[in-house]
Amino acid sequence: MAFDSIQTPAGKADKVLGGSVNYFSVAASFYAPVQVLGVVGNDFPQAHIDWLSQRKIDTTGVQIVSGETFHWVGSYDTNLNEAKTLSTALNVFEHFDPRLSEKHRDAEIVFLANIDPVLQTSVLNQVKSPQLVAADSMNFWIMGKPDALKETLKRVDILSINETEAFLLSGEKNLHKAIVAIRKMGPSVVVVKRGEYGAMLFTPESIFIAPAFPVDQVIDPTGAGDSFAGAFIGYLAENGASRDMAKKDPAAWNKLLRRAVVAGCTMASFTVQDFSLHRLMRLEAPELAKRQAELLEMISIG
Amino acid sequence: MAFDSIQTPAGKADKVLGGSVNYFSVAASFYAPVQVLGVVGNDFPQAHIDWLSQRKIDTTGVQIVSGETFHWVGSYDTNLNEAKTLSTALNVFEHFDPRLSEKHRDAEIVFLANIDPVLQTSVLNQVKSPQLVAADSMNFWIMGKPDALKETLKRVDILSINETEAFLLSGEKNLHKAIVAIRKMGPSVVVVKRGEYGAMLFTPESIFIAPAFPVDQVIDPTGAGDSFAGAFIGYLAENGASRDMAKKDPAAWNKLLRRAVVAGCTMASFTVQDFSLHRLMRLEAPELAKRQAELLEMISIG
Repeated sequence: MAFDSIQTPAGKADKVLGGSVNYFSVAASFYAPVQVLGVVGNDFPQAHIDWLSQRKIDTTGVQIVSGETFHWVGSYDTNLNEAKTLSTALNVFEHFDPRLSEKHRDAEIVFLANIDPVLQTSVLNQVKSPQLVAADSMNFWIMGKPDALKETLKRVDILSINETEAFLLSGEKNLHKAIVAIRKMGPSVVVVKRGEYGAMLFTPESIFIAPAFPVDQVIDPTGAGDSFAGAFIGYLAENGASRDMAKKDPAAWNKLLRRAVVAGCTMASFTVQDFSLHRLMRLEAPELAKRQAELLEMISIG
Repeated sequence: MAFDSIQTPAGKADKVLGGSVNYFSVAASFYAPVQVLGVVGNDFPQAHIDWLSQRKIDTTGVQIVSGETFHWVGSYDTNLNEAKTLSTALNVFEHFDPRLSEKHRDAEIVFLANIDPVLQTSVLNQVKSPQLVAADSMNFWIMGKPDALKETLKRVDILSINETEAFLLSGEKNLHKAIVAIRKMGPSVVVVKRGEYGAMLFTPESIFIAPAFPVDQVIDPTGAGDSFAGAFIGYLAENGASRDMAKKDPAAWNKLLRRAVVAGCTMASFTVQDFSLHRLMRLEAPELAKRQAELLEMISIG
C-alpha cells in the first residue's frame, strides 16, 4: 500500500493511491475473493480501505500504524516500459512485520508481492498449507538480498518478473537459459512481463506468448505488472488452480495458465489508461469481459 | 540488390549480400515462384544470381550494368530494432529504370520493395492486370517524396511498414488513428512490423497480433522485414490470394492473412540468426515447417 507521485509524458499525479497489493487485489477481486496483507500510516484514507472492503476484499490484514504511508516518486520518459525512481520513502513500511490471523493462515493460494524476500518467507511460514504460491520481485531485492530471495523462490511455484530482472537473477544474457536457471531455483512456471508487448509464459511443457491489448494511449504504466498478476492469479483461483493440478493434469494446467495470461494482459491494459487505480476503480465486469474476448480474437489464428 | 557492411553487438560483416529483393525473393521462393526486378553493378557475384536461379527464382529481370552495386553501411546498438545508417552509396541504383519484359508484365501479385516511389509506380504501370499489390517504404521516401508515395499508395492493397513510419506517413501519434489515415490513402491492409516483438495486422475487419518467434540470439536484424514480407506474400500467393478474394470472402481473406503473418514472423526469425542471407540460404523446408508449427503452438490458447 503506497502513495505514488508520478510524472509521465501524458501528465503528472501527486500522492495518488498506489502500491503492489492495491493494484493486485483490485484486479484479482474481479475473479476471486482476496485477503490483503499490508501496512499503511495514519495518513492513509480510510475511505479507500472501505472501498476495497465493499468489493469483498478482506482488509483486516491491513495494519494501520502511526506514521506516514510508503511514498514512491517516479517518472517515465517516452519509453513507458521503464520507470525511473526519483525517491522512495519507506516510512511505516520500514518496520513492517506481517502477522497473519487464523483466517489468513488458511489461505490456499498465496501471492507474495514485491517486498523484502525475508518478509515474503515470513508470510509463507505462517500459511498452513499453501496449494499454490506465486511471487514477484525486482532489481532492488535481486541485487540487495539475493540469498534471502533464493530461499523464498525454493517454495514458489510461479514467478512473475521482467526480462531485465530474469537476466539479473539468473546471471544469464539469453532468455531461454535464464528461464532454465530460474526454474532450478524453484518456480516451475515463469511469467516474463514485457510492458507494452505483453507477456511470455514459460512452463515445463511449453512457451506461450501473448501481446498486450493495444490501447490508444498509455497514460501511466504504474501498476500494470501488479494488476497483470492480480488478474492472472485471480483467474487461476477462480478456476481451481493448484500445484497438484499442475502435476496431475499438465495439459489442463497449461491451458488454464494461458487463459490466465490473457486475463492478466487484459487487466493491465485498463490500468495504464489512467493514473493510479482510477481506471480499475471504475472498471465494470462487462467491459472487462468484452475486452478479454477482443484480445482472444486478436490472437486467434482462426 | 545490394552489398551491406554491418556492425551489430554480435560482430561485423563486410560487403556481404543484401538488399530488399534478395531477402524477399529467397523467403518468398519457399512458397511460390518469384520473378525479381533489380539492378546490380558488374562487381556483383554471378554465382549468387546463379544460386537464385537454381531456386526457381526468375532473375531475368536483374539488370547488370557497368559500375558498382548499391552499398549500405549500417550498425545496430543493443536496441536491435533500429538500424543506424552510416553511409549509402547508390552507385548503379541511381539511374535504375525498371523495364518489364512481356512475361513480367503478366505478373498477378506484385511486391514493390522499398525504393523511390516514382519507380514503384513505374513498375506498376507496366504490369497489365495486377490482382494484388503490396508495398514497403521507409522514412527516407515518406519525408523525401511524400506526394509520389501517395500516388503509389492509391494502387496498393497491402502496405508493410513499422510503427515510426506509420506515424510519419499519417502525421498521427496514435497507432489506431495512423492506420485509419493510411487506409484512406489506399491500402486496405496494413502490416505493422515490430522487430523482436513481431507484427500487427490491420484489416477492415479486425486486428491480429503475432509475436516474433523467440530465438536464442539475434546476430543481425538486417533483412528481417524484407524476409517477413517475402514469406508473407509468398504464403498469400501459394494460397491464391487476390483483391477479389478480399471482397468476396472477407472471412477467408482474414484467416489467410493471419496465417501469412505467422509465416512472415517465422521466416524473419531465421534471417536474424546470422549475417546477410547466410541463414536463409541454408534453410530447409522441413525446419521452416517445424518452426512455423512451433510458433502457431506458442500463440494458441488451446
